[in-house]
Amino acid sequence: MKFYDCQTAPSPRRVRIFIAEKGVEIDTVQVDLGQGEQFTDEYRAINPDCVVPALQLDDGSCISEVVAICQYLEDKYPEPSLFGVTAEQRAASLMWNSKAEQQGMSACADAFRNHAKGLKGRAIPGPDSYEQIPELAERGRQRVAAFLEKLEHQLAGHEFLAGSHYSIADITAMIVVDFAKRLKIPMPDDATNLQRWYDAVSSRPSAAA
Amino acid sequence: MKFYDCQTAPSPRRVRIFIAEKGVEIDTVQVDLGQGEQFTDEYRAINPDCVVPALQLDDGSCISEVVAICQYLEDKYPEPSLFGVTAEQRAASLMWNSKAEQQGMSACADAFRNHAKGLKGRAIPGPDSYEQIPELAERGRQRVAAFLEKLEHQLAGHEFLAGSHYSIADITAMIVVDFAKRLKIPMPDDATNLQRWYDAVSSRPSAAA
Repeated sequence: MKFYDCQTAPSPRRVRIFIAEKGVEIDTVQVDLGQGEQFTDEYRAINPDCVVPALQLDDGSCISEVVAICQYLEDKYPEPSLFGVTAEQRAASLMWNSKAEQQGMSACADAFRNHAKGLKGRAIPGPDSYEQIPELAERGRQRVAAFLEKLEHQLAGHEFLAGSHYSIADITAMIVVDFAKRLKIPMPDDATNLQRWYDAVSSRPSAAA
Repeated sequence: MKFYDCQTAPSPRRVRIFIAEKGVEIDTVQVDLGQGEQFTDEYRAINPDCVVPALQLDDGSCISEVVAICQYLEDKYPEPSLFGVTAEQRAASLMWNSKAEQQGMSACADAFRNHAKGLKGRAIPGPDSYEQIPELAERGRQRVAAFLEKLEHQLAGHEFLAGSHYSIADITAMIVVDFAKRLKIPMPDDATNLQRWYDAVSSRPSAAA
């Protein structure tokens, strides 16, 4: 099994933290996105979507998409569970992971990729070229801010996003908060529950991954 | 358990088909999105995101996000499996479901919601207002077309998207193809594998759901 990573990118960090929480060691290859290594013929043969993270299995097949990689690792290394143990916990973990992806990560990516000077013509990750849309960068910022408010609301009533268990949803949402910081969208001053949760999840040893 | 549906919308249809494949009956409530029923106080109390589908459990809690609802139903009604049985099958199903969501459904939604006259100020589903971005509608159309090409490529080597088993990924992707048709983005004429697969999945009894 081989994990294709990029140390500086938010999405593969979700998998790095997941692996650290599982306490396993997986052979890791750095793909230098800044140098365009994701577009080489060699990497394209591994993952035609030209994105990281990707997990190559021993039969040569490749799993991309963070939730799929994490589900595979959860199946292979069930302890500690990061999706939850009961059907209700699994549903809540996947629900909040999905919200964090679609309302948080996607919005951050819209804000970043439609604005960064180095990403002209690269507004969508992958092999195809798409021009930046400045209005979309601005809308992304608004949506990120709205999602931080939503996190605060959910965490007012729950220790972790999906309830009382730490899960894949907390990993994704923590990375949304960190991505938002890079975009200079801070947590609201009065978001005391979000801050309490962030302090807890970001002080876990896995967060250094 | 109560399923909040809207008969005319693409996302809840994913769950309707999933339920039909499981062969179970679930108490269903229609939410009339055209009349704005998703914004009523009553529905907001069930799902504050103001979207369908949603599945309310008997304890009053609510699961939203299609993949989470489907995972819950998979746990409760394991046969026939629609996520796959092995770790490798589950990963492939989730991976292609995720690609179909992010590269297919999202792109269709961008194309539709940023263009439809009736959705001014409603470019993103949910309680917050976002203005339409016409350039994003056009980019959405380009991405839908690119995703149909990707489906053709994958299906050239596989009976179903995730391999030899019909899965949640096929449900999502079939609905992308149908959504694309509504947007007048047809399958490419030479996409013989996509057409073969579409004929097979859309003639299953569940597709009428």
